[in-house]
Amino acid sequence: YYVELPPPSLQDNASDLSRLLRGLKQRYKLSNMTVDFDVVKKLPQTLRDGKWKVTATTLVTAVKPKAADLRRPRLINIETGDTREKHYSLAFDIGTTTVCGQLLDLNKGKVVAEGIEYNAQSSYGQDVISRIAYCQRGGCPKLQQAVVGTINGIIRQMLNQSHVDRSNIGHMAVAGNTTMIQILLGLDPKYIRLAPYTPAATFIPPVKASAMGIKVDDHVYMFTFPLIASYVGGDINSGIVGSGVHQRKTLTYYIDIGTNGEIVVGNSDWLVAAACSAGPAFEGGGIKHGMVATSGAIEDFEINTSTLEPTLGTIGGEKPKGICGSGLINILAGLLEAGVVGQNGEFHTDLPTDRIRQGKSGYEYVLARATETQTGKDIVITEADIENLIRAKAAMYAGCQTLIKSVGLTCCADLEQVIIAGAFGSHLNIEKGITIGLFPDIPRERFTFIGNGSLLGARLTSFSTDLLDDARMVARMTTNLELSENPEFMKNYVAALFLPHTNADEFP
Amino acid sequence: YYVELPPPSLQDNASDLSRLLRGLKQRYKLSNMTVDFDVVKKLPQTLRDGKWKVTATTLVTAVKPKAADLRRPRLINIETGDTREKHYSLAFDIGTTTVCGQLLDLNKGKVVAEGIEYNAQSSYGQDVISRIAYCQRGGCPKLQQAVVGTINGIIRQMLNQSHVDRSNIGHMAVAGNTTMIQILLGLDPKYIRLAPYTPAATFIPPVKASAMGIKVDDHVYMFTFPLIASYVGGDINSGIVGSGVHQRKTLTYYIDIGTNGEIVVGNSDWLVAAACSAGPAFEGGGIKHGMVATSGAIEDFEINTSTLEPTLGTIGGEKPKGICGSGLINILAGLLEAGVVGQNGEFHTDLPTDRIRQGKSGYEYVLARATETQTGKDIVITEADIENLIRAKAAMYAGCQTLIKSVGLTCCADLEQVIIAGAFGSHLNIEKGITIGLFPDIPRERFTFIGNGSLLGARLTSFSTDLLDDARMVARMTTNLELSENPEFMKNYVAALFLPHTNADEFP
Repeated sequence: YYVELPPPSLQDNASDLSRLLRGLKQRYKLSNMTVDFDVVKKLPQTLRDGKWKVTATTLVTAVKPKAADLRRPRLINIETGDTREKHYSLAFDIGTTTVCGQLLDLNKGKVVAEGIEYNAQSSYGQDVISRIAYCQRGGCPKLQQAVVGTINGIIRQMLNQSHVDRSNIGHMAVAGNTTMIQILLGLDPKYIRLAPYTPAATFIPPVKASAMGIKVDDHVYMFTFPLIASYVGGDINSGIVGSGVHQRKTLTYYIDIGTNGEIVVGNSDWLVAAACSAGPAFEGGGIKHGMVATSGAIEDFEINTSTLEPTLGTIGGEKPKGICGSGLINILAGLLEAGVVGQNGEFHTDLPTDRIRQGKSGYEYVLARATETQTGKDIVITEADIENLIRAKAAMYAGCQTLIKSVGLTCCADLEQVIIAGAFGSHLNIEKGITIGLFPDIPRERFTFIGNGSLLGARLTSFSTDLLDDARMVARMTTNLELSENPEFMKNYVAALFLPHTNADEFP
Repeated sequence: YYVELPPPSLQDNASDLSRLLRGLKQRYKLSNMTVDFDVVKKLPQTLRDGKWKVTATTLVTAVKPKAADLRRPRLINIETGDTREKHYSLAFDIGTTTVCGQLLDLNKGKVVAEGIEYNAQSSYGQDVISRIAYCQRGGCPKLQQAVVGTINGIIRQMLNQSHVDRSNIGHMAVAGNTTMIQILLGLDPKYIRLAPYTPAATFIPPVKASAMGIKVDDHVYMFTFPLIASYVGGDINSGIVGSGVHQRKTLTYYIDIGTNGEIVVGNSDWLVAAACSAGPAFEGGGIKHGMVATSGAIEDFEINTSTLEPTLGTIGGEKPKGICGSGLINILAGLLEAGVVGQNGEFHTDLPTDRIRQGKSGYEYVLARATETQTGKDIVITEADIENLIRAKAAMYAGCQTLIKSVGLTCCADLEQVIIAGAFGSHLNIEKGITIGLFPDIPRERFTFIGNGSLLGARLTSFSTDLLDDARMVARMTTNLELSENPEFMKNYVAALFLPHTNADEFP
């Protein structure tokens, strides 16, 4: 908010803050503001340096749904002159495996730069459970430092790319799973792992980002998405809010294929969520040549059914370096359709091709030979990789079936919409996902792929105040179903350990 | 607020914070709370250490008058077990010359210890103007440190006296003049001295006391009284609120005889205030043997009209060490009535007593001889001291006259109530104050002496939430009259430079 204030006089020598608040009220009808003490501290000099022409930055925080009158804008910064043109924010998805950031121009409502990096915590453990275990041994500060380092690296990259000045960042919205967010905030996550699995807080008050070690100006607050449960985090809430599931009557299946594999079924009236413990296979984790969806990752795969020779497509068209999530789905579906892999996930070893061979730990199919790759080594998919993929897709599919039954619906065909989120790369082929039994076999036009849903929600709340309240509402209205000790889920899971499924009726 | 919470279970695994807030809502109907991040941080361990029985501390902040629905209690601390018994707060008056503190038991509503010390800033300048000048030379951090040192000393003293544990202090309320408060908070006061004399903020948001260097636990917020103008500070607001001037229809004259000398005229409908630049004479400043009202200070004075020999009363009954404010008033009135001093403030040097003598800088009256004092030196009152006192009382009386005229009243006799505040010691003699022309000559039953009004208000707001809103209202409703360039004031001032006054009709 830019204001030009009348300078004080002996007739009107109101305090500097009163003068500013009066100006903001007259010009923008802002009232009932709360004020950060840091603003009071710099106010006298800033007003005079700016010759009583200044720009104020306010923070709007989430309140109870339908209680907007409780909202009190918080004055967080004051700058000389008119700086409205330079108004940026950060949106981040803190994944267990990867961290994605976007730098947003809040005036234009668009992304001006983005960055993705492996979460530096990965060297302390691949999944949330090993990270929590590391915290239990006193490692929480180290893990916090690690992820903050990753975030700072991405911020630096994005600022370099966009030539935006760090001081023009005024806000930060972060989504992530419960463990990632607690570690980022320095909240020991140990009770997340111990029954009955309680997180510290569902709704965490905005904190100063700089207090967590994030390199932004001191007035920047970090908003973290409210979480639903210990294993259904703010990243899922962010995806629901970002894709608008909570705003429509349409019965929706929301599936986030991240390290953990969370799913939600519902609409504007009700929402049920569950974590499937699917493992990180679709993010490339536990896969011999798996990698995140960055340049050089194999994402497209065709196979010549006569010669069994592959045709590969990579991100950026570069020489292949590894396989990303969408690539794994396309490869498995292609190998299945060509009869290279059987419905049980084992290779047919009697085929006339040298692409199938015995590797160090069982059979494998050579996707690219050493001479064609960036790594100078063969890139393969192994039978162990396929086993991992089958377990992961089975957990997701079984979770969906269990949720659907839990709310009294009969089968997946009742779903009117399927929203798929995940950091796969942009070439997710829905048809191939159905081929391997990851997605339900329902009309293709019901499917939408939104990419990183967690990042989407973080971006959209930066642009819209209402969505902050929505996020709070979604966290409250969503019921969490604990699958880990659910016998129905276990039955469904075992039945889904087949390509596409042991029950052929499910995949007509 | 003490709560016993049901431990989490797989059926009810709400987050720790949700559980606590639910408990506080059910038990105490507390809702719409905001939560300090530090509480979230210690919550999981505290809940489990306390076996789900904990005590929560909340902070209530001031809101717009008549807008109590905007109030959101802030959760600032959480402790194991039931600690409601141990609930203390601090009230402080930060004077230019002295700092007074009280340790309050919030359950019993009483003072458990108090302390008074010279403001350690005094060595950098006697009055606010010299302190501001020191800040302009870059000395603000040093002055902040000095007063924080004084405050910490008083806190230490009071904790020792009362055997209260420092961790049981949950709140701090501070009143002081604008310059003292700005320096305490590290807000450079330079613009207070430059026309048009604007303070940084009228209402300063509560700040963490520990962030200012005050030795209390990190969850303690410091509330500072909203100020009225650069030279009518939160100390006056505190006195008005503490003595209830704003609650009654009674036309009241409120007079604070501190270093500066501020006065207020008004009632529940309107309030007008002014600073009289009276100087620190009544606090003992600029008086040869002046001192604050602590043990050994001469506060009572009688003079034998025949022998002109004095009878002294000291605080604590000890040997005299100096003269406090109430002593100065009593001495000057006594000397005037006995004809030792004339109406122009000069000694009658032809009287048959060796008590009147020529000192190093003019005539003086010997109150106590070296053998009778703690200092081992004579204690005297000089003609220069009397001149200072006359200037100080003239400024106050002229200010009162000017305020009264400014609101359309005719004379001091219209005043229905006079409230006198000041750190004089408890023996202020109203009659003697009228004798020298400090107070108006109206019926004696209209006078009330409240002692340190600033400290009174700070204490009372610690006990009553409503008074926080009142303080905000008083700051808004009070009109400040600038006397420094007011010709009416100058005329009144010159006329009052006489004992009791040049216009005998004013003092029938």
